[in-house]
Amino acid sequence: MVLVRPQHDGNVGAVARAMGNFGFKELVMVDPCPLTDEAFKRAKHANYILDDATITSDFESTVSDCFLVVGTSGIVTQGEGHYIRIPLTPRELAERTMGHEGKIALVFGREDLGLTQDQLLRCDLLVHIPAHDEYPVLNLSHAVTVLLYEIFAAQGTPSKPNPATEHEKELLFRNFSALLEAIEYPSFRREKTNVMFRRMMGRAIPTKYEFYTIMGVLGGAAERIRRLERKKGDEEG
Amino acid sequence: MVLVRPQHDGNVGAVARAMGNFGFKELVMVDPCPLTDEAFKRAKHANYILDDATITSDFESTVSDCFLVVGTSGIVTQGEGHYIRIPLTPRELAERTMGHEGKIALVFGREDLGLTQDQLLRCDLLVHIPAHDEYPVLNLSHAVTVLLYEIFAAQGTPSKPNPATEHEKELLFRNFSALLEAIEYPSFRREKTNVMFRRMMGRAIPTKYEFYTIMGVLGGAAERIRRLERKKGDEEG
Repeated sequence: MVLVRPQHDGNVGAVARAMGNFGFKELVMVDPCPLTDEAFKRAKHANYILDDATITSDFESTVSDCFLVVGTSGIVTQGEGHYIRIPLTPRELAERTMGHEGKIALVFGREDLGLTQDQLLRCDLLVHIPAHDEYPVLNLSHAVTVLLYEIFAAQGTPSKPNPATEHEKELLFRNFSALLEAIEYPSFRREKTNVMFRRMMGRAIPTKYEFYTIMGVLGGAAERIRRLERKKGDEEG
Repeated sequence: MVLVRPQHDGNVGAVARAMGNFGFKELVMVDPCPLTDEAFKRAKHANYILDDATITSDFESTVSDCFLVVGTSGIVTQGEGHYIRIPLTPRELAERTMGHEGKIALVFGREDLGLTQDQLLRCDLLVHIPAHDEYPVLNLSHAVTVLLYEIFAAQGTPSKPNPATEHEKELLFRNFSALLEAIEYPSFRREKTNVMFRRMMGRAIPTKYEFYTIMGVLGGAAERIRRLERKKGDEEG
């Protein structure tokens, strides 16, 4: 992470926190403002990133050992001739860089002016965060957060609680179907309703726990109806 | 956007800015800290959002007119029994809510404590931002930024079929609860199972058609059991 001439040390602290949140460590600042208590307060448990940060005075040499220099820009130019500022979205950046071993510099300019033309020219690619036309310029630490979030997310999503297996789901669908039968659901609508239930479950992606619980309820209802019907039959017979 | 008991007005200002950046307007705060100049400074060109913000003192009534109440949580519980805290990622939320016309409440708790258990129970679904294990709790305005960024990015995609209203969903939940009663579901597990069902429905975001169909099945089963029980009672009496 390279911050070029950041002006507000509160922002620098917030950037450090975002880095800690997404598992990034190396912060380099080119000609930054002095860091006061405010920066450390905002960094919270990522204070160590501020402690270990490197300060340089020259952009060019700062990024010289990086295999990819990624510039960020709050402004998108429409004209095709402005090749310098045709940017990727954060997601495209994350997809294209994922799995790469080399060191990548994510470069953010100062809050008010962004990166200079020369600095933009040095970047291998540009990223722009899609935002609302009326106020598209994000706060520095917000922009950092979005980029790091995308890069972190592309590294593999955390595992979810155990989902139900195909076999367990079939059991559930059979239970649902049995319930329709028990309540004498109109036969011409059964297939459609079964499919609808399957689709809803498909969207909800229930866990094993949820499957067993809901199966218990549906199965319990069908079973109870059958038992009551049988008893009634016995008494009537 | 609903902020419950925010403690730092600088954060509130930063949230307003993020809202402006992604074209969101309506900010509601439940029992917030007072807003000083710091909030307006951090909101920058999104000051109007702070000016127009609504302040309430009761969470429940604040979200009562929303078709979907989305809670956010910095903590993910692993155990499968912890159905209350099985969250979606911000991207999954954006995909599932895109194109929906109804009002959605995005609810963020206070910076240090998050949402209370009761508030989490009221939410139709939960979102968690995947982050680094060692320091997974994002700054409030950073978390807001990630969610709004994802929702903004997902916009412009085709609309979904009519979703069920809050009122219709309450009817469904009541029907489910009545079915638990009819099958004499263990009373100590009822609340947990009711919440689990609500969460599953929250993740599936059923259409009106699906709601009415599933309500017909659950209500039909409960009704049939009651009728059979009554008949049995009459015959025995």
